[in-house]
Amino acid sequence: MSTEIEIRIGLKIGMADPEGANVQKALSLLGFENVNAVKSAKCYRVEIAGNQEAALAEAEKMCQRLLANPVVHDYSITVAD
Amino acid sequence: MSTEIEIRIGLKIGMADPEGANVQKALSLLGFENVNAVKSAKCYRVEIAGNQEAALAEAEKMCQRLLANPVVHDYSITVAD
Repeated sequence: MSTEIEIRIGLKIGMADPEGANVQKALSLLGFENVNAVKSAKCYRVEIAGNQEAALAEAEKMCQRLLANPVVHDYSITVAD
Repeated sequence: MSTEIEIRIGLKIGMADPEGANVQKALSLLGFENVNAVKSAKCYRVEIAGNQEAALAEAEKMCQRLLANPVVHDYSITVAD
């Protein structure tokens, strides 16, 4: 038995997001005029052996130890559909 | 009025995902032994002026014209909480 976990690593509020800014600029150049903001984030779909509760706890540890930098990143962990 | 849309750009099944493979390797080296697979993806949180229906339609066009490469990417579009 395994659980699919979706980990989303985004930038904290106030951190510069040049990728998001560039996407917004490119969208504007393509004629998408009603875009107010674009924020980029990195996602990982991790398949973890074990039940849901254990997998969520493991994913939390993965973020703390490897995936997220607590200085610049916020992360969220959800069970994938 | 504006709507926050979450766009998730992932790799199609069968496409090489070196980033995901490297994360899986790093997790294994850190002692996370029960990880069966890691898939990476890119997410964009886009704030679009207008109602939900219009924003979803715009986001679909954004994926087709800029964000996703139909040869290698699958994308999903959802309204952010």
